[in-house]
Parts: sequence; structure tokens; C-alpha cells
Amino acid sequence: MIPSDLENKIMAEKEKGHVPFYVSATAGTTVYGAFDPFDRIADICEKHGLWMHVDAAWGGGLLLSKKHRPKLSGIERAHSVTWNPHKMMNVPLQCSAVLFREKGLLQACNEFCANYLFQPDKQYDVSYDTGDKTIQCGRHVDVFKLWLMWKAKGTCGLELQINRCLENAEYLYKKLKSRDNFELVFPNEPEHTNVCFWYIPPSLQGMPRDKEWNTKLHKVAAKIKAHMMEEGTVMVSYQPLKEKPNFFRMVFSNPASRKSDIDFLLDEIERLGGDLEF
Amino acid sequence: MIPSDLENKIMAEKEKGHVPFYVSATAGTTVYGAFDPFDRIADICEKHGLWMHVDAAWGGGLLLSKKHRPKLSGIERAHSVTWNPHKMMNVPLQCSAVLFREKGLLQACNEFCANYLFQPDKQYDVSYDTGDKTIQCGRHVDVFKLWLMWKAKGTCGLELQINRCLENAEYLYKKLKSRDNFELVFPNEPEHTNVCFWYIPPSLQGMPRDKEWNTKLHKVAAKIKAHMMEEGTVMVSYQPLKEKPNFFRMVFSNPASRKSDIDFLLDEIERLGGDLEF
Repeated sequence: MIPSDLENKIMAEKEKGHVPFYVSATAGTTVYGAFDPFDRIADICEKHGLWMHVDAAWGGGLLLSKKHRPKLSGIERAHSVTWNPHKMMNVPLQCSAVLFREKGLLQACNEFCANYLFQPDKQYDVSYDTGDKTIQCGRHVDVFKLWLMWKAKGTCGLELQINRCLENAEYLYKKLKSRDNFELVFPNEPEHTNVCFWYIPPSLQGMPRDKEWNTKLHKVAAKIKAHMMEEGTVMVSYQPLKEKPNFFRMVFSNPASRKSDIDFLLDEIERLGGDLEF
Repeated sequence: MIPSDLENKIMAEKEKGHVPFYVSATAGTTVYGAFDPFDRIADICEKHGLWMHVDAAWGGGLLLSKKHRPKLSGIERAHSVTWNPHKMMNVPLQCSAVLFREKGLLQACNEFCANYLFQPDKQYDVSYDTGDKTIQCGRHVDVFKLWLMWKAKGTCGLELQINRCLENAEYLYKKLKSRDNFELVFPNEPEHTNVCFWYIPPSLQGMPRDKEWNTKLHKVAAKIKAHMMEEGTVMVSYQPLKEKPNFFRMVFSNPASRKSDIDFLLDEIERLGGDLEF
């Protein structure tokens, strides 16, 4: 999100008599793992009286790392934040949180006061009954999985785990830069653990990079992924994005991944894709 | 739901120029466990061109019992049905299904065709990818729990289990009729496993049943439940409903419950509530 562009769009809508009320920024986008500039977005939201939400589903875990936390600077100014500990923090599916700055808001929005579900005349303090704050009623106690993991690993353990994943992303990034048959989608070091890249098979090298070349390159990742699935050796995502043909997206969230696994991944892509002809 | 009343309301809205479009009937209401007359409701929906939904979250399990299935007669005419195998069928929380009669409708309503999530160029038939049919994206494979249970117990096993729960409800109903200190909320045999009743402590017996008496009776279930929780012997729900003061709602969903457990429940309520004074 480009703050100046956001503000221009708010102004344009206001001029038309519309009332913008909500901005949804992202901490860790799905494909690129990008972080929006939260402080500058918060300034704009404050100035125009807009609700600021941060979708930190994927990137929220970085708050546990002193080294990587600055990427989320300004998130504390948001009115609401979503965060999925089942993503970066390895809690088994599902474990999702939506956090609101204003205390009592969720209850005021969601409560039905159905006394056949949540009896007000219990022998304990019913303010601990959380049912009326949620959209769902009967549900699994997902937060228990996070609580147990936090108790077992500690804040330091989780920090080490997250730092390890980002180190792996950095290692892959450097390897990709140094290998001839691979090309990065972005020249810069990744902000999160998403590393996006193309494998260029020998048959596509040294050719003019025209529309036809792009069409051929688009098929490479899908073909290699199909081979991977058949052989069962590795598994890595791919997708196109806008005008960009299919590229691989390696995402690290398992801290047990080692450098040798990353070397193996690149070797395996070359092994499975080296003979591709078009 | 009273069919004639439903039709009157539809007509009244149409006369005002409104367009009713949706009827939500219930198979197994939360408190009473009641079943709506689906065939007659379906007739009205057909006549007026309305979508018929059946909330069978709680009562849907009875479809597995040849004996109790007729209570849901007409549900097959619904356009959509919700069903929670985590309720009557003992699948661990959560396991919920929403079924639509028209094939392809959920996909048409929910699909985003986000090719960065669900790649269309895979090596297998992507019509098996269910992600684009659902509202959620990343989620736990809850249906696996149901599948495993079904494989283990078989359709016959599930039927026996459901019949057992309804037999227990019938046993409790008969016991309640035969014991002096208990009173049923409804005189009829329960349709589902919900059995709703009051315990009338000796101090409230033989007195005029006026407003004051109701206010006192209202406190009985809450006080006994609090004792139950403190002693940890049994646990049973209670709630008021409209003008009815707090009553107990025993619901059977565990087929391992035995008649001796039911006898114990009633003895325990008498033991914990026998001395209540107002």
C-alpha cells in the first residue's frame, strides 16, 4: 500500500460525497510476504477519521522477534488486528485471533444475551464467559494449542524459531542470486520468509524475453511441481501474479528446515526441470 | 413453526409489497428438541416460491435411525440443510456441514478464482479442490473425524448409538412422571433427547402457584447447578424460556450413559435441592 496513493483515493471518494471508513493494511502478504508502512497509514487514518485494520495473519508472528519486529512498527496504532498463530507460529490448524483495541466492542457487537445458552445466574463471575463475544457459539478451544506451545517453548523459544525461518529465507535468497539457472522475482532481500523465484531451464536461456518466452516460462513451475508431487521429494508453491508468469514461492514456517534441505530443493528443481523443452 | 401462521405472515408481508424469500425451519430446537412439520412447510415454500432451509444442527443425526427418521420427513424437500455431526453424533468439536440441493451453487457463490491460492494448471483434476466452494480458506479437515468414526462404527453402529440416546430420554421422561418432586415442562414424550423438567423442593410444594412462587422456583435450578459444579458429581443445563422460570434441560448425546446414571441424576438433584428454603 502506497500511503500517498491511499490518501489520494480517500480524497477522491470524499469529493464524490462518499464516506470512506475503513483501511485494511497487511503485515505479510500471501505471495510476496510484504509489509505495509503502518505508521504512515496510521497517520492518514487518524487525519481522516478512518478505522485502521491490520491483517497480520501471516506476518504477526514476527512481533515475537526483536530483530524482525520493526517491520511491524505502527501496528500498535491499529484499531483491529487479525493474527493466525497457525501460520508463522506452527500451531496446528486452526488457530486464529482477531484483536480489538476498544474493550467491550466485540461483546457489544456480537452479544445476543440468549439466556438459554449463557445463563446470567451462575455461581461464578460470568464476565469470564466468552461465548457472547464471538460470532460462532459452540467451538473448539483452539487457543489452548497456542497456550500449550507457548508454555513449552517460551517466548525465547518462539523467537529463535522465527529467526531461524527468516535465516533460511535469507540463505535461499543468497543461493538463488549465486546460481545461474534461477532468477529472483524481486532483487531485494525478502521481508518475510516468502522467497519468490523462477527456474529458467537451459532450453529457455539466452533467448529474447518476449511474449512467447513468457508463455513458455509460465509452464515451467507447473511442470516441475507435477514431477515433485509424483516423485514425492519436495513440495513448493507456485502461482502467477498479474503480468508475471508462474513463479515458485518458497515459504519457510518449519524451523526444522536446514540449509541442506534448501540446497536439495534447488538441486531437485534443476534435476526435474533441466530437460524441459518447448 | 405453525404452518398456517407461517402462511398468514407470508401473505401479510406480500400485501405490504415486501418480498419474503427464505424460510428457516428447525429439526431439533436447542431447548425443547422440537421438530417442525417439514412437509407442510415445504408445501407453503413451493406455493410461494420461497427458499426452504432446515437447521438440522442438532436433530439431523436422527436420520441415521430407522425408528426416529420419520420425525424429519420432508427435510428432503429443503433447498439447504445445516447439520453438526459434533452434536448428536459425538464427533469432537467442530464438525459442521451445510448441504445444498443445487449442485455448483456454493462454488458459484464463493469462488474467487484466486490463482495464487488454487492453481488451475495442476497435474490432477482440479474439480476435486474444494477450497473455492467454502467461505473459509485455510482450515482443519474436520470431516476426517466423521469419516473415521463412520468407518469404525458403521451405519448400524451409529444407529444403535442414536437409538440408545433416545431410549435414555424416554427412560428419564418416565421416571420424572413417576416421581413426586419433579414436574415435566411438557406432558408429551420428548421428540428428541431433550428432557425439560423442574425440581420442586419440599419447601415449595402444596403452595399457591402465583408470581411469587414462580420467582422462587426460578432460583432452584441455578442453586442446584451451582452445588453440582462445586461437588463435581453431575452437570446438567438449565435456562428459563419466555414466561417459564428456570428449568433443567437434560440432553443425551453420550450413548455410554446408563439407566443407573439417570437414576443417580434424579437422586442427586433431590439430595442437593431437598433443603432449599426461600
